[in-house]
Amino acid sequence: MFMKNCWYVAAWSHELIDDALVGRTLLNEKVLLYRGNDGKVCAMEDRCCHRGARLSMGRLEGNCVRCMYHGLLFDSSGACVEIPGQESVPPNLKVRNYPIVDTGHLVWIWMGEPTLVDESKIPDFPYLKDPAWHGRPDYLHYDANYQLIADNLADINHIAYVHTNTLGGSERYVVEQTASPLEKLDDGFRLTKWHMNSDLPPFVKKIEKKMGKVDRWNTVEMKVPAYFFLESGFSPAGTGIEKGNKEGSLEFHNFQAMTPETDRTTHFFWVYMHNQKKDVELYSHSLHDSILEGFHEDKAIIEAQQEVLDADPKFKLRAIASDAPLSHLRWLVDKRIKEESTQA
Amino acid sequence: MFMKNCWYVAAWSHELIDDALVGRTLLNEKVLLYRGNDGKVCAMEDRCCHRGARLSMGRLEGNCVRCMYHGLLFDSSGACVEIPGQESVPPNLKVRNYPIVDTGHLVWIWMGEPTLVDESKIPDFPYLKDPAWHGRPDYLHYDANYQLIADNLADINHIAYVHTNTLGGSERYVVEQTASPLEKLDDGFRLTKWHMNSDLPPFVKKIEKKMGKVDRWNTVEMKVPAYFFLESGFSPAGTGIEKGNKEGSLEFHNFQAMTPETDRTTHFFWVYMHNQKKDVELYSHSLHDSILEGFHEDKAIIEAQQEVLDADPKFKLRAIASDAPLSHLRWLVDKRIKEESTQA
Amino acid sequence: MFMKNCWYVAAWSHELIDDALVGRTLLNEKVLLYRGNDGKVCAMEDRCCHRGARLSMGRLEGNCVRCMYHGLLFDSSGACVEIPGQESVPPNLKVRNYPIVDTGHLVWIWMGEPTLVDESKIPDFPYLKDPAWHGRPDYLHYDANYQLIADNLADINHIAYVHTNTLGGSERYVVEQTASPLEKLDDGFRLTKWHMNSDLPPFVKKIEKKMGKVDRWNTVEMKVPAYFFLESGFSPAGTGIEKGNKEGSLEFHNFQAMTPETDRTTHFFWVYMHNQKKDVELYSHSLHDSILEGFHEDKAIIEAQQEVLDADPKFKLRAIASDAPLSHLRWLVDKRIKEESTQA
Repeated sequence: MFMKNCWYVAAWSHELIDDALVGRTLLNEKVLLYRGNDGKVCAMEDRCCHRGARLSMGRLEGNCVRCMYHGLLFDSSGACVEIPGQESVPPNLKVRNYPIVDTGHLVWIWMGEPTLVDESKIPDFPYLKDPAWHGRPDYLHYDANYQLIADNLADINHIAYVHTNTLGGSERYVVEQTASPLEKLDDGFRLTKWHMNSDLPPFVKKIEKKMGKVDRWNTVEMKVPAYFFLESGFSPAGTGIEKGNKEGSLEFHNFQAMTPETDRTTHFFWVYMHNQKKDVELYSHSLHDSILEGFHEDKAIIEAQQEVLDADPKFKLRAIASDAPLSHLRWLVDKRIKEESTQA
Repeated sequence: MFMKNCWYVAAWSHELIDDALVGRTLLNEKVLLYRGNDGKVCAMEDRCCHRGARLSMGRLEGNCVRCMYHGLLFDSSGACVEIPGQESVPPNLKVRNYPIVDTGHLVWIWMGEPTLVDESKIPDFPYLKDPAWHGRPDYLHYDANYQLIADNLADINHIAYVHTNTLGGSERYVVEQTASPLEKLDDGFRLTKWHMNSDLPPFVKKIEKKMGKVDRWNTVEMKVPAYFFLESGFSPAGTGIEKGNKEGSLEFHNFQAMTPETDRTTHFFWVYMHNQKKDVELYSHSLHDSILEGFHEDKAIIEAQQEVLDADPKFKLRAIASDAPLSHLRWLVDKRIKEESTQA
Repeated sequence: MFMKNCWYVAAWSHELIDDALVGRTLLNEKVLLYRGNDGKVCAMEDRCCHRGARLSMGRLEGNCVRCMYHGLLFDSSGACVEIPGQESVPPNLKVRNYPIVDTGHLVWIWMGEPTLVDESKIPDFPYLKDPAWHGRPDYLHYDANYQLIADNLADINHIAYVHTNTLGGSERYVVEQTASPLEKLDDGFRLTKWHMNSDLPPFVKKIEKKMGKVDRWNTVEMKVPAYFFLESGFSPAGTGIEKGNKEGSLEFHNFQAMTPETDRTTHFFWVYMHNQKKDVELYSHSLHDSILEGFHEDKAIIEAQQEVLDADPKFKLRAIASDAPLSHLRWLVDKRIKEESTQA
């Protein structure tokens, strides 16, 4: 069971170039994604309505796609417009089309009820569109349910133990931090954690040799079903960052979008951005590699966790205090799923 | 659910040499195939009745096979005739034996009711026995239900799109062809398609450099459950092939037999034959490789189609005009399966 | 369904060194095994009670183990004793602990009702503790139910056909042997088979060049659920071994313990021991390799047998005379399982 009436990331915009026909499973449905010659991105069922051949094994023709089994041609609405060797095309020969918005370097898809489409609900991550901010968009495939990945992100404390030697820096992070009250939103939450007078974590040390002790902050915002926005910063210790003085500080913006592939696999789209003015590529490259190393630490734990949960459906998880954001997010998602099933 | 009271190809005759004990799953049953020292091919359950060890991991002894777990010896009827260390053999110690006919380079097996065995029902492909015809028998394994492969063959139009650059030659094939009326048979169908004044397809161009425009014909005959016989020919354009003048024409005979391994995997036996008098081996070799290349194009589409169908059992296929032969063949198979279940 | 109120081998003692956290599935349960700094072996659920992360991906700290997802610390009883960043630990935060006995180079685990634990029921194989006996403990993983492996061992006749050229030596073993009456025990059976005036089997010939004809004996003892003890000996033929004269004879002691991993996979712990005084290492090495070669012969047959049985749950095995020990052992295991379910 997934939220359907919402936007999911289907692809990075740059994946849909050079006449690519991308076949991707989203929320258990096989979807074909492509950019027509008019530059517009289309999404439709990746399954010919005739014999079930994959349209992603077909051929782009203008804004249409031709099934390369028996040659049926579909326009960007999913309607069959040509059956080679047959004069007329019955009107029921069509495949499902999905609403798509191609904005901010991301391709967003609406898997739910088409009459409820609302573009204003697309989550905004402005840094991707801001020329002052740099980073390398990337993708990971997870053998785990998308909510296990969101759970991980909802408790930033995990950086202390999972990422001690990469993104975290110290197991003391958990006990020395001070946190803002959890700000519960209608569609997610927001939370800031401070770690004053701490050491730079390894991933920053690699590229910032001169900074000494820092005041570190992480502002996490998550939105249903599974979007993660992180503002991460490091200011010279004691210079008043908590009062708003950002002088001399380093700031990063991180976006992660989890799109269910199936009930137990996930598409994970991510980018980690900086606003350095010198050595921009070097910075981007170093950050990308460091974050990816950290993500593989998460992936090992989460995929093993998925196996553990699969093995015993009766196992009951037991909450600790830092699960509050996670619990709120899961509660919101469950509520939305219930609302959708009541409406339908 | 498979048709049972009919003959399936179990193996090429040449597979059963050198005391080979071939274990092969046919219609979900594990079958042992071997040629005894008397030259006769036997088929029996590939499962010792004692502890379920595979007899194909055993040893041929004359016309018998010995289980190499505890040494039980079975004769070619499947009866246990020796238990080492035990004086008498209880009569219920036997494995199932299957009727076999070894003819025309093929080993045919009857998986159904033994009392209904009728050798006259073995499909005949005379070219395999005719010294004027040459070809290289071969085998492919398919991760797809046998009927999806038969469907593919039942609509020869697919050569236009799947095999444009190999066996087909032109997407115009579909629209320029003229077809005979579909001849519905009690156990299959027959159909001829003409493509007049067309170009030689790539697979023939490779070996026939001098021919220009041709009149091309394909006569397809299919039989239940899944036999495919194709007469394929190319005549210099305009020389009257449609009136029966075969002078100067090239002719090929193609046989394909699909035997279900399981519900979603298939044994695919095939041979593509020519009657050239010069460069016989060169011709055979070239044709074999070209056809195999084409079969891999089919395989990619059909195995993806199987995955699509597996993913959504509720998906309804929608017929187009050229599905008529396919529909007739499937209807016949369903009818036979129903008749068999009524009889039983 | 497994016997639970009994001891299973969980590991060789030497696997639990160097702070190893061994995650191993036993009877379908994920178990963490480790040796604390106090030298004691602990076993607990390999699943953090918080979010289900694997504790075997954690870190040993003294006698405790820390989950490296969010840092929860568990003592050797399985109780959570620290949640980083949280002041108190709720008493229900604990994971299941399993009774363990570390004796005779083996780690024994009790997967059943803890109040019924009885150390006196641990099967004894004294040769592992006796400095006069030498061998190389080893492990095999089986893709087969543990009882199929036990069945194989219960009928020693299989050495004639499965191991003709390795451990057996002659197919005549079955017909020339004389056997003691089957001694049925409350928890297993005992049986001796003699093969007088026989040739040394290949695995002994490799290391004993000078022996001629031998009188060979195999004394098998098996215990529920699946322990195998074998005394194997070779005496110069005709020197009276059957009357107890062991002069000039070679003797081996073999222990095999099968622990179910899942319903269709098994942990197989084994050691084959000799009491030579010269070339001890050479002997151990040679025996280990010979026996392992034989075990791979078993494994090929048994894993294929498992596939055969999986494919057709309705298949009925048919007993022969030499199945009597096997039948007794299976009957005992079934009886115990029934008793356990009545008690519970």
